[in-house]
Amino acid sequence: MVDDYNEIFHSDRFFDPSEEIKSIAREIYNVIKDLPIVSPHGHVDPKILAYNEPFPDPTELFLIPDHYIFRMLYSQGIKLEELGIPTIDGTEVETDHRKIWKKFAENFYLFLGTPTGAWLTHELFTVFDIRERLNADNAEAIYDAIEKRLREPDFLPRKLFAKFNIEVLSTTDSASDELKYHRIIKESGWKGKVIPTFRPDAVVSIDKPNWKSEIDKLSESVGETIDSFPKFIKALEERRAYFKSMGAVATDHGVRSAYTHSLSNTEAETIFERALKGKATESDAKLFTAHMLMEFARMSTEDGLTMQIHAGAYRNHNEFIYKRFGADKGADIPEQTEFTNNLKELLNEYGNNRNLTIIVFTLDETTYSRELAPLAGHYPALKLGPAWWFHDSIEGITRYRERVTETAGFFNTVGFNDDTRAFLSIPARHDLSRRLDANFLAKLVTRRQITLDEAKFIALQLTYDLVKKAYGL
Amino acid sequence: MVDDYNEIFHSDRFFDPSEEIKSIAREIYNVIKDLPIVSPHGHVDPKILAYNEPFPDPTELFLIPDHYIFRMLYSQGIKLEELGIPTIDGTEVETDHRKIWKKFAENFYLFLGTPTGAWLTHELFTVFDIRERLNADNAEAIYDAIEKRLREPDFLPRKLFAKFNIEVLSTTDSASDELKYHRIIKESGWKGKVIPTFRPDAVVSIDKPNWKSEIDKLSESVGETIDSFPKFIKALEERRAYFKSMGAVATDHGVRSAYTHSLSNTEAETIFERALKGKATESDAKLFTAHMLMEFARMSTEDGLTMQIHAGAYRNHNEFIYKRFGADKGADIPEQTEFTNNLKELLNEYGNNRNLTIIVFTLDETTYSRELAPLAGHYPALKLGPAWWFHDSIEGITRYRERVTETAGFFNTVGFNDDTRAFLSIPARHDLSRRLDANFLAKLVTRRQITLDEAKFIALQLTYDLVKKAYGL
Amino acid sequence: MVDDYNEIFHSDRFFDPSEEIKSIAREIYNVIKDLPIVSPHGHVDPKILAYNEPFPDPTELFLIPDHYIFRMLYSQGIKLEELGIPTIDGTEVETDHRKIWKKFAENFYLFLGTPTGAWLTHELFTVFDIRERLNADNAEAIYDAIEKRLREPDFLPRKLFAKFNIEVLSTTDSASDELKYHRIIKESGWKGKVIPTFRPDAVVSIDKPNWKSEIDKLSESVGETIDSFPKFIKALEERRAYFKSMGAVATDHGVRSAYTHSLSNTEAETIFERALKGKATESDAKLFTAHMLMEFARMSTEDGLTMQIHAGAYRNHNEFIYKRFGADKGADIPEQTEFTNNLKELLNEYGNNRNLTIIVFTLDETTYSRELAPLAGHYPALKLGPAWWFHDSIEGITRYRERVTETAGFFNTVGFNDDTRAFLSIPARHDLSRRLDANFLAKLVTRRQITLDEAKFIALQLTYDLVKKAYGL
Repeated sequence: MVDDYNEIFHSDRFFDPSEEIKSIAREIYNVIKDLPIVSPHGHVDPKILAYNEPFPDPTELFLIPDHYIFRMLYSQGIKLEELGIPTIDGTEVETDHRKIWKKFAENFYLFLGTPTGAWLTHELFTVFDIRERLNADNAEAIYDAIEKRLREPDFLPRKLFAKFNIEVLSTTDSASDELKYHRIIKESGWKGKVIPTFRPDAVVSIDKPNWKSEIDKLSESVGETIDSFPKFIKALEERRAYFKSMGAVATDHGVRSAYTHSLSNTEAETIFERALKGKATESDAKLFTAHMLMEFARMSTEDGLTMQIHAGAYRNHNEFIYKRFGADKGADIPEQTEFTNNLKELLNEYGNNRNLTIIVFTLDETTYSRELAPLAGHYPALKLGPAWWFHDSIEGITRYRERVTETAGFFNTVGFNDDTRAFLSIPARHDLSRRLDANFLAKLVTRRQITLDEAKFIALQLTYDLVKKAYGL
Repeated sequence: MVDDYNEIFHSDRFFDPSEEIKSIAREIYNVIKDLPIVSPHGHVDPKILAYNEPFPDPTELFLIPDHYIFRMLYSQGIKLEELGIPTIDGTEVETDHRKIWKKFAENFYLFLGTPTGAWLTHELFTVFDIRERLNADNAEAIYDAIEKRLREPDFLPRKLFAKFNIEVLSTTDSASDELKYHRIIKESGWKGKVIPTFRPDAVVSIDKPNWKSEIDKLSESVGETIDSFPKFIKALEERRAYFKSMGAVATDHGVRSAYTHSLSNTEAETIFERALKGKATESDAKLFTAHMLMEFARMSTEDGLTMQIHAGAYRNHNEFIYKRFGADKGADIPEQTEFTNNLKELLNEYGNNRNLTIIVFTLDETTYSRELAPLAGHYPALKLGPAWWFHDSIEGITRYRERVTETAGFFNTVGFNDDTRAFLSIPARHDLSRRLDANFLAKLVTRRQITLDEAKFIALQLTYDLVKKAYGL
Repeated sequence: MVDDYNEIFHSDRFFDPSEEIKSIAREIYNVIKDLPIVSPHGHVDPKILAYNEPFPDPTELFLIPDHYIFRMLYSQGIKLEELGIPTIDGTEVETDHRKIWKKFAENFYLFLGTPTGAWLTHELFTVFDIRERLNADNAEAIYDAIEKRLREPDFLPRKLFAKFNIEVLSTTDSASDELKYHRIIKESGWKGKVIPTFRPDAVVSIDKPNWKSEIDKLSESVGETIDSFPKFIKALEERRAYFKSMGAVATDHGVRSAYTHSLSNTEAETIFERALKGKATESDAKLFTAHMLMEFARMSTEDGLTMQIHAGAYRNHNEFIYKRFGADKGADIPEQTEFTNNLKELLNEYGNNRNLTIIVFTLDETTYSRELAPLAGHYPALKLGPAWWFHDSIEGITRYRERVTETAGFFNTVGFNDDTRAFLSIPARHDLSRRLDANFLAKLVTRRQITLDEAKFIALQLTYDLVKKAYGL
């Protein structure tokens, strides 16, 4: 992808400094670095690829949609308004994108040592040939350079998709989504593979103010009023079938707690009806979510969709920001998460099923070695998702492999996913992950735990084979 | 033990790849590598050494009794029936041991990067001269080679005991065990030291279905019907005395929670009587266990047996497997464990006692630096057991030393124990531990925290002196 | 500070052994090693600097006031009485300081591999030119050497303060303290900057037996009887103003739980009145502390004092020791600590305030990456204090940077603080921290994450700029 390296984007980046490990890491990395990207879990807006229009300016491309970036700026006292983040009520915010970019550039040093910084450096270098660290002095010139490029045909989304060597890209879509953009892509004749993922969180969260309107949308999507729990289940099954017909291979479930529990039909119906009346309690919501995870697992055994569970984020922790700017503004904070007890019912009911794949993700790293690796090293249906979110980083991925491998092995994990809404960061994230896996394997080789050939075989699995297997691709 | 090394079993295995550390690690390791093995906590069946009969075939030796191995195969979709694991109800399972071995060999790659893999490689290499990684192609030949060896006199258990340089081997035995095999060993004139450990879990777990029958066995073992709490206590004291007379130096207590709490006599008696009537509740069981830990500590102050507490495993998490195959089938899963509050009563009552040794083991690594090292760095009676079970590994032992040493020092730990039911894996496990300790100490030397002489002194302590002191051997 | 190094105090100590990292770590360290010490949080007795009298003998200087040292000796079976630790009731303890020193020296090996050992080596080497590891043989001679030095004018506290290059030293003082020693220092004409810190824990802990007498002292300090909650608040505000007039820049709050919650005026008053009657419950105390954290944050927004929260220590875990010897005797044990939920109210009310600084410290390292870095990487008011107490060590500081940096960056941390009551250990602790930061940055440089120039810039920030900014110095 690049044929020249300088100090801030070195060909040996992220490898262990010792020559013993580095030289072997390089060799392993060379086996996997050019493999196609399989991205089974992400949040890129499919509209981008459906319409294939030029990206707007650098600020709109890099900063405004990326809460990884503006959360750090916000933490240092810069208001989101100053960064052009739109408010819910339409109150004016900064619209001068050059001015915003300047502020970003002045504060780029805040990202030193962070994965966000590493990804940005990769993107600026490989996509836009920027070979300097962004700062106040070069802000303007770099803005100009990027803006110019964005108008060239080679920088259209589909061109980049091809350049990035993406074999398949999964998006994340709500249960009632008509998948309009996926349809447009399909009908456009373009060969890029962009598939939806079924994420029904909004229709499961019976204690959220907007739940009723989400149910209305779901009713509309299936052409029938959902006024009972059995109809709700039937609607979800229909929607899953539709998603599958549009290429979906997986579902995704974002839950605060991983608690799973089967309710009786009567209990489930009673809670659902209470919710329809707007009277669901917090405890109802907890039980309902626990029950729905059981239901979704049951559906997966029937339709074969891989089930992903993302647990442990306290969403919208900062109410001031949430009220003013909405969700996904950098204020989702992890909390302690428990799996051994919480997943017991689910795993006892479905965990012994050899034809089902349940992938669990966590933000609580203490569970890697204590709970998740032991569980995945036993239950055939359970696999471990890669290091997630805040841990999708040099230290985070290393900790993940160090804590998981000895108990679960490599083959109960499912390869990497980028989990990103920033399209341009996809290759940067996959490259970082490949480097860290190569480095981890090189360490095993130098410690004489595995041979170099074994390391190369495992690297291929981690990069390509395991993800295709886990998602049935 | 070996005088030739190849790629998969290198003389520098597990050492840090940097030459700076490796060369010093080697030097420290050389001081301890040939020291006798003191194994103060394990689960080898004493019958093996009592009868000293040839081990049966490779599958029976390596695979069927070892849940470390078949849990990993099970997690990848291989049924336990296919692996010849016997069912409780006698339903037929695979009996062709060559076929089972083949399946194991085909899937041996699953163990790459795991301690199980490292131990197996060590055993195959040093005991059976197998210098290849097991795989589908060499499965048959290796099976033959091992089977042939097993018929030679040098491969009888007592010969291997001597070859392994085992100074003392502790077994684990239930409270009512008559210690028949220990008696046979004693009376056989063989000089090998095999001693029992008093593990009364079964008679303490008042909420388990088989508790009453365990009490009956205990009654029988003391020749008196246990129909009251005082008689129960008296029986336990008698049994401890008997175990001590047979060489025991320690007791062992496997508990889900480390909660300790003294009940009044009346409370204890009431709960015990409720249990005798089969009416003990879960809360009764929790309180009773908490009280019994206090009682066992009190007994240890009187009879001098070292008290071991293993906390934090959710046993038999997979009910399907438990019902079909029984306990110890790879489905025990760790969970969050708390010590600061839970051990408070125990430590306040007995922790200041200089003549008592309480050794705590955990599966929750977060407690190493947060709770256990601070507690062991203060209370004279408390010592830390080595990295346990899933953490008895390259990364696990390293994390243990890194998190424990700075607060508790080296001298509040108690050396290594192998905790294994796989007799052949004993030298492999001790060797791995010695290498990792040598490596950890070498790192301290290269970072100029300690001198090489100090490192050698500590290595000797960690390998030999501390364990003998902690268990009064 | 030293121009000669030997085996036990090497100029490269604590750096990574690989030459690649070490050579760069040295270069970064050279930029920061001679910077003045800014010590914004500590427990040195200001009396030492007020009266500037010679330190008494070595035992009195090093051992008796330092619970880091005697806790380790105690854990190995040496009674505190044998170490001369004074009892509360005046029962006699060992008074022969040479004899105590001998015992300490005989057991110095217990500190190998611990930060306490590293600091002691540093102090003995740099302050007293002791170039040997303390042991039974050299105990007497070293005692003599130190004692002789302590009588020389260069070893008076203020001379050492200057030699240590301390720019500012913060003490910790109770809410009702008249700050007599700070006044003496101010009026003495000496130029050393020693400032108080407002720590009101004793008047907030309404469930402690001595609370009422603490309130009486507070009443006395403001010249008005505190018989209602509003008067309590007013008194605290007055005391803060007084502390500020004496140079204070910060407050400090030691709490077992980080729970924050606003009570209504009526609720707060009711609890306060119940406390005045000696009838406060444990639940009252918990709520009251939660409310007072909110109140103190509010006051900080008004008077600009930086707010420090130290959470998660179970104080005086060993009641026997507490009753016989009092607080701070090495029996404070960390426990699980939760921030995401507990700090929610505080951060929602004050966390978006750009003019407020709240610094959080924890003993529960699991919260670094899971809770604290995500929170500090978002809320403008929140910053992370350095690795605290048991974690102020080679491995502890390394884990801190590894877990915090990728999510919070470097600039949401606040530099180092020594948190020590051992005056002589201040340079040793700062030097260790500087070395570890240099080493961490060197690793980033060798992994090509940052350039050497960037590393030097960050090192300056971590050592000097960030601490001055966070504490408004």
